[in-house]
This record gives sequence, C-alpha cells and structure tokens, in this order.
Amino acid sequence: MMRPVKVLGLNASPRKYGNTFKLLDVALRTASLHGGEVKLIHIYDYSIKPCEGCLSDEQLACRPPCLNNDESWNLLKEILRSDALIIATPVFWYGPSGHLKNLIDKLTIFENMIFISGRSWVEGKVAGFIAVSAEAGAVTTIAYLMSVLNSLGYFIPPWALAYYQGTGDALKSKEAVMDSANIGRIIVKAAETIKANMPGKWYEPQILKTLEEHGVVESVAKEAESLEREERSKRSELVGKMLKTDPSKYRFTL
Amino acid sequence: MMRPVKVLGLNASPRKYGNTFKLLDVALRTASLHGGEVKLIHIYDYSIKPCEGCLSDEQLACRPPCLNNDESWNLLKEILRSDALIIATPVFWYGPSGHLKNLIDKLTIFENMIFISGRSWVEGKVAGFIAVSAEAGAVTTIAYLMSVLNSLGYFIPPWALAYYQGTGDALKSKEAVMDSANIGRIIVKAAETIKANMPGKWYEPQILKTLEEHGVVESVAKEAESLEREERSKRSELVGKMLKTDPSKYRFTL
Amino acid sequence: MMRPVKVLGLNASPRKYGNTFKLLDVALRTASLHGGEVKLIHIYDYSIKPCEGCLSDEQLACRPPCLNNDESWNLLKEILRSDALIIATPVFWYGPSGHLKNLIDKLTIFENMIFISGRSWVEGKVAGFIAVSAEAGAVTTIAYLMSVLNSLGYFIPPWALAYYQGTGDALKSKEAVMDSANIGRIIVKAAETIKANMPGKWYEPQILKTLEEHGVVESVAKEAESLEREERSKRSELVGKMLKTDPSKYRFTL
Amino acid sequence: MMRPVKVLGLNASPRKYGNTFKLLDVALRTASLHGGEVKLIHIYDYSIKPCEGCLSDEQLACRPPCLNNDESWNLLKEILRSDALIIATPVFWYGPSGHLKNLIDKLTIFENMIFISGRSWVEGKVAGFIAVSAEAGAVTTIAYLMSVLNSLGYFIPPWALAYYQGTGDALKSKEAVMDSANIGRIIVKAAETIKANMPGKWYEPQILKTLEEHGVVESVAKEAESLEREERSKRSELVGKMLKTDPSKYRFTL
Repeated sequence: MMRPVKVLGLNASPRKYGNTFKLLDVALRTASLHGGEVKLIHIYDYSIKPCEGCLSDEQLACRPPCLNNDESWNLLKEILRSDALIIATPVFWYGPSGHLKNLIDKLTIFENMIFISGRSWVEGKVAGFIAVSAEAGAVTTIAYLMSVLNSLGYFIPPWALAYYQGTGDALKSKEAVMDSANIGRIIVKAAETIKANMPGKWYEPQILKTLEEHGVVESVAKEAESLEREERSKRSELVGKMLKTDPSKYRFTL
Repeated sequence: MMRPVKVLGLNASPRKYGNTFKLLDVALRTASLHGGEVKLIHIYDYSIKPCEGCLSDEQLACRPPCLNNDESWNLLKEILRSDALIIATPVFWYGPSGHLKNLIDKLTIFENMIFISGRSWVEGKVAGFIAVSAEAGAVTTIAYLMSVLNSLGYFIPPWALAYYQGTGDALKSKEAVMDSANIGRIIVKAAETIKANMPGKWYEPQILKTLEEHGVVESVAKEAESLEREERSKRSELVGKMLKTDPSKYRFTL
Repeated sequence: MMRPVKVLGLNASPRKYGNTFKLLDVALRTASLHGGEVKLIHIYDYSIKPCEGCLSDEQLACRPPCLNNDESWNLLKEILRSDALIIATPVFWYGPSGHLKNLIDKLTIFENMIFISGRSWVEGKVAGFIAVSAEAGAVTTIAYLMSVLNSLGYFIPPWALAYYQGTGDALKSKEAVMDSANIGRIIVKAAETIKANMPGKWYEPQILKTLEEHGVVESVAKEAESLEREERSKRSELVGKMLKTDPSKYRFTL
Repeated sequence: MMRPVKVLGLNASPRKYGNTFKLLDVALRTASLHGGEVKLIHIYDYSIKPCEGCLSDEQLACRPPCLNNDESWNLLKEILRSDALIIATPVFWYGPSGHLKNLIDKLTIFENMIFISGRSWVEGKVAGFIAVSAEAGAVTTIAYLMSVLNSLGYFIPPWALAYYQGTGDALKSKEAVMDSANIGRIIVKAAETIKANMPGKWYEPQILKTLEEHGVVESVAKEAESLEREERSKRSELVGKMLKTDPSKYRFTL
C-alpha cells in the first residue's frame, strides 16, 4: 500500500489566527479527510534572511542548504519532505507578504539542482494557493505564485486557487470555504495520481538529442518557410501599402 | 489499449510562419514523438466576435454554443475534443493577442456548465503555454494564461511554459527549443497519467456536505480562537503602543 | 485662457448600462464639474479587427491609420483628440474584455511614431482606469493597463485607479464611487498641470549624446568596478564556500 | 528660485555592483545633469523586518514610524525626504527581491495616514522603475511596482520604466541605457512640473459632498436606467434564446 500524501500548509500571515489561517486550515482538514498527512507551519515563526543572489556570481553556488542557512532551512526541509504544498498568504500590496517572498526567493536552491545533478528537487510535487485580502489583489497574487511554483517543477491541479476578499470572517463565505476545501481534496487526489504514475522525470534536459535524431528543428524550419511563401505575397502587399501611407495626414491638432 | 492523447496547438499569431508558430510546432512534433495525436490551428483563420457578457444578465445564459456562435465555435469544438491544449501567442503589449483574448473570454461557456450540469466541460484537461516577444512581457502573458486555464479546470503540469524574447530566429535559441519540446513531452505524459487515473471529478461542489458531517468549519473556528487567545495579548500590546504614537513627530518638511 | 481638458471615457463593456458604465459616468461627471470637457464612448458600438502584427514584418509599417482601418479608426481618432483617457472595463477572466484588448493592440500605431517621426502621438496625455468584476481580478487588470499606457507615453496621476468587485449596484459602494470620482477630478487637474508646463518632449531618443558628452556610461562602469573590488572578496569567500558544499548531504528521501 | 528636485535611487540588489546598480546609476547621473539632487542607497545595507499586519487588527495602528522601526526606518525617512523615487530591482522569480518586498509592505504607514490625518505622506511624489533579469519577468515586476506606487499616491510619468534582460553587461545595451537615462531626465522634469503646480491635494476624501451637491450619483443612475431600457429588449431576446438552448446537444464524447 502506498504511504499517505504529505501535505504541507504554509501560513504566510503574521496574524496566526486570521482569515489566511482559517482557509488554510479548512484546506488541510479536508486534505486529511481524503487521506492526506497534513502539517501547518506559520512562517512568521521562522526568520528568513533575504537571497544574496549567488547565482549571478556563480551558477553552481546556489544550492542546498543555501548560503543563509538560518531558520529558513527548517522551512525548506519541510517543503522538501512534502508531496504537496498549500501556500496561504495575506495580500500585502497586491502580492504575497514580503516574508513569504523571501522564502520563495530561496526555493531557487532546489530548482537550480537541474544544473548540478540534472533534476529539480521539487519536481513533480503538487501546489495549491490561498490568498486573503481586505480589498483586492488576490488573483494577481495567486497568478504570480502559480507561475513561480510551476517554473520550479510543481504540478498545478485544476482549481488550485481559493481566495477571500473582504474584512469579515472568511469562514462565513460559502464560496471561499468551498474552494479552499476543494484545494485540500484535489491536491491529495492529484498527488496520489502523480506519485503512482510518475514518469522517470518530467523535464528532460537531454531532449535536444531526441529532436536531433528526428530532425525536428529542420522540419519545423521547412514548414515555416513553406507557410511563409504562401503568406508572404499577401502580407507584403498589405505591409507595402502601409509603408506608402503618409501618417501626417491623420495627425490632429488639439 | 488507451487511445492516444489528443493535443491541440493554437497559434494566436497573425504571422502564421513566425516564431510563435515555430516553437508551437516544436512542441507539437515532440508531443507526436511521445505518442500524442497532434493538431495545429491558426486562430487567425477564424473570426471571433467579442463576448457579450450574458452571464451578468443571467448566469445560466452563458453556455454552449455561445450566443455568438460564429466561426469561433469551430475553435471551441476543437478545444472540447482535445485532451491537452498548447496555447502559443505573440506578446502584444505584455499580453496575449486581442484575438486570443476574445477566444479566452468565450471559454466561460465550458466552465459555466458547473452551474448548469455540475461540471466544467474542460475539467481535467492539460495545458501548456508558449509566448514570443520582441522585447519583454512573456512571463506576465504566461502567468496570466496559466491562472485562467487553471480556473477553467485545466491541469498545469511541471514547466508548462516556454518563451522566446528577441527578434531573431527562435529555432536558434537552444533554451526556447528545449523548453518548447519539453512542453510537448510533459503534456502527453501528464495527460496519459491523469486520464488513466481520473477521479470521478476534480472540483466537488457538494464538498460542503462533507465539511458539515465532520464539523470542519467549527473545528477551524475553534482553533483560530485558541490561537487568537494565545497571540492576542502580545499583539494587543504592540498595536496599542502604536496607537499612542504621534506620527506628526516623524513628519519631515521638504 | 487655456481651453478645457478633453477627457475621453471608454466603456469596454458589452452591457452599456452596467456597473462599468456607472463608475465611468461618475468619473466623467466629476471631471466635468472640475472643468473637463467630457465624452463617453461605448467601444462595443465599433467593430475592431485584430492586430495583424505588421511591426514584426517591417517596423515602419505600423502607423496611422493602421492596416485594418475599420470602425476602430474612429475610436483611435477620439483617443488622439483627447488630453486624458479613462478606460473602464469589465473584468473578463482576470483581464480587460477581448474587445478592449484588440483596441489596446492597435494603439501601437501611435507609439511606433517614435521611430517614424521621433515622437509618440499620445505622449504626455493622462490616463486613469476603472475595473468592474463579479468576483476578482480588478487589480491585475488595472496593473496591466497601467503598464501598457505608461509605455505608450501616458502620465499616470496619483490614485488613477478605481474598482468594484461584486454583483450588486456599484453606485451603492461608497468607496467605488469616491475613487471613481477622484479619478475624474485628479485627471483634469493633472492634465491641466502637465499641459501648462509641458517640456519640449518627455522621451528623448537623443539622450545618448548627452550621456556621451558627460562620459556618464564610463563613470558608471568605473563606479561599478570600484564597488565590485570592495565587495568581491567578501562575496567570493561566501560563494566559494557554497561551491564546496555537498548538497546531496541535504537530500531527503520521502 | 525653486530648490532642486531630490531624487532617491534604491538599489534592491544584494550585488551592489551589478546591472541593477549600473542602470540605476545611469538614471541618477542623468537626473543630476538635469538639475536633480540625487542619492543612491543599497537597501541590502539595511535590515528590514517583515510587516506585522497591524492594520488588520486596528486600522489606525499602522503609522510612522512603524511597529518594527528597525534600520528600515532610515530607509523610510529617505523616501519621505525625496521628491522622486527610482526603484531598481533584480528580478527574483518574476518579482522584486524579497528584501524590497518587505520595504514595499512597510510603505503602508505613509499611505494609511489618509485615515489618520487626511492625506498620504507620499502623495504627489514621482516614481520610476528599473528591473534587471537574467531571463525574463521584468515587465511583470515593473507593472507590479507601478500599480503599488500609484496606489500610494505617486505620479508615474511617461516611460517610467527601463529593463535589461540577459546575463551580459547592461551598459552595453543601448536600449537599456537610453531608457534608464530617460527615466532620470523625465522624473526630474515631471517632479518640477508637479511641484510648481501642485493642487491643494490630489486625492480628496471629501469628494462625496461635491457629488451630493450636484446629484451626480442620481444622474448616473437615471442615465443607466435609460440606457438599460433601450438595450434591454434587444439583450433579453438574445439571452432568452440562450436559456432555451440545450447545451447537451453540443457535448462531444472523446
């Protein structure tokens, strides 16, 4: 029998008991009901020094346990140990809390292992996102986190997002509770599916060899040329017409 | 034996033979090498009328085949028929082409079926993204598309993004080609994995019943209260101190 | 005496009478109270063909009146005639309506005049933004529009943004009304200030000559080298230490 | 005679001598050539504790000098003393450095003074943005910062953005240097214009009174009703037609 999916929930709010915590807790308890082994961490319990940008000095210097292996290393270890991650953040100026951003910046040590040992250490894990805002900015915060986690190698299962915008009690919003609970459910099911059927690896740096063997780039170039021949005369005429147009005739004086 | 994964590639560029096409074609040919059944469509071959926002008049009026079932319905049908979608767009002012945006707006007819028949028609499909820009804006375009497709019910597999920023031939960028090829490979593997192990459904609108049965919301509320008791006195002191501070003492005159 | 500031309001919603219209109308009426000469256009009254990307074929082909000088040229002329622009859009999938995006794409004809006649035709105009959403996505929509308009040469005055998120009557939201009204007021005051004191031009393509005359790039390079010398030994030590670290010692087996 | 415009440049990179510094220094030196009084600060020279979210406990508790008045208060004071701000940041995971994000979060103390003394302490200042990235993410970073600074009350003058994407020497990119220099020039000219012609205040919380006096909200409501009457019958027919459509006829079986 397969061991249960480990789900880590990160509360990126300084207010441990607020709406961010509440929706995260809903998600984790639902994950637990669906067989997940869950853990909630308040990231404000850990100091996190900012990224020193070693990567720009020397690509291979960015690696575990990070130059600044302060208390944040304990957070990073928990991320490594988990199969799935739910990041819950308050929206501070249309983005994640700065404390969370410092942690995000440090995740590069795992992704950068592609260049050191051929594979991201967080590849194939699953992620979900919760954002809580007094007014607005939830979607821009979540879209941001989603694009980052995906670039680290995370799977984003369907509807991996929930948010609450307002100043009341988020537990009273049927929609926010329902969406958060679904994240918990979906993330466990997705992680089970993926773990059980994990291909050797997802990102394959050696893929250029396959392309060469099959002459893929050459075929694409040929196809593009052929399309260009077909389209070009039509487009050239249009574009040529524009080049002869005198824009000053269309200028208005205010 | 399982039927092959159907991969649809949408070229959202008016220039059918340009870099957007080239990287999309690399992705699709690689998908094909990994067992996918691929199809490439130039969306500029179809007229797409803008969304009329029926949803805001009447939630249930937004449904297939859409009020404006012009040529775009043929595009929408292809999306419905596919297991996986690769959207390749030129970056026009830091976003997808307006023509693509009009198509994106119409995808609501599939998602809105949640409210009509309990399930999004595109649930559990898989998506990848390619953006091509002369200068910049690729990431903001991709993060945008990713958050939308995920909200429609799409799976976003690891590294579902590739881009080329520049004015040369994208096929000469090793990184752009490698990332695009990986999208093709990853999307087929992810779709196979998910199709073979699809749970009944991903998003479960009935989940509130499960929460009720297990008293989840009550437990969360109780936990939050307990945390608040612990934290409150400490926080109240800090916050109270601030309330007594006179900010005018810190005001500078320029 | 100075002629009044011309303020153009674009309603990008298909529902001419909805919340998007209402907040835009509040902004325009307030602009009028502060001396502006206002005009409201429903962009859905005009057909807008998608951008053909001529620019990528031939930089100078993208110019007024645009290849596709359909009804949208009438919209573009109004933009040209105005001193200030307030764009009000419903949020369709976390972004502007596709119809508006098609118009945005066409604005390139004005900006691209920098390369044809040395100056953007919309330089120094002033812009404000209103977004209306049933649920979320207002900030991501506004931040997007703001970055585009600024790149076209528009001034963005303080608090140039207002939004309403919800399904009720936006006129009942004190905050949405107040913020929209302030856009109307601020945009007139900002346009008056800027028109009265317009420098020759804002963006100066000839600035590299000034830099050369004063050896600016050389001075910066020298300063950077000096800073690097100071910092390098300290950083090299840290980075060098990381290069000797064995990350495999930190790898966990799940 | 007016005193010179004070321009503060913040370098948000841990590498004080890198491309972020270089482009910022170009901007500042150009600002100086145009009469600005400039100052460059490396924010990594200051510790910045994360925001504690007091605002959510008690709106009025978020005020200068901030609960965590650590070394960051010295940064905040410099911002207060300046007329114009140029923020230059490396792109860490498609966003500003986490260290900068922590500083951004703290700027709320100035904006929140609207609720304490009727006016944001940074109202009417001018901002520009520089982002440097090895690969991508510059525009998403800048659009983010722009929307935040505007919401704080900053003016964003035309073309207030410059970026460099790549791993070479940014000083060798003609475009990056030209755009950065233009920020320096534009920001001084814009700040001069605005300072010389500052209206009493930009955002006017009392504007609702003006609206009441002129019955603006009532007029808008009436206008919307009139438009709705005109449009409704046409729309109702369309929407009604859709409500009778059977979407299941359009469902495909894969």
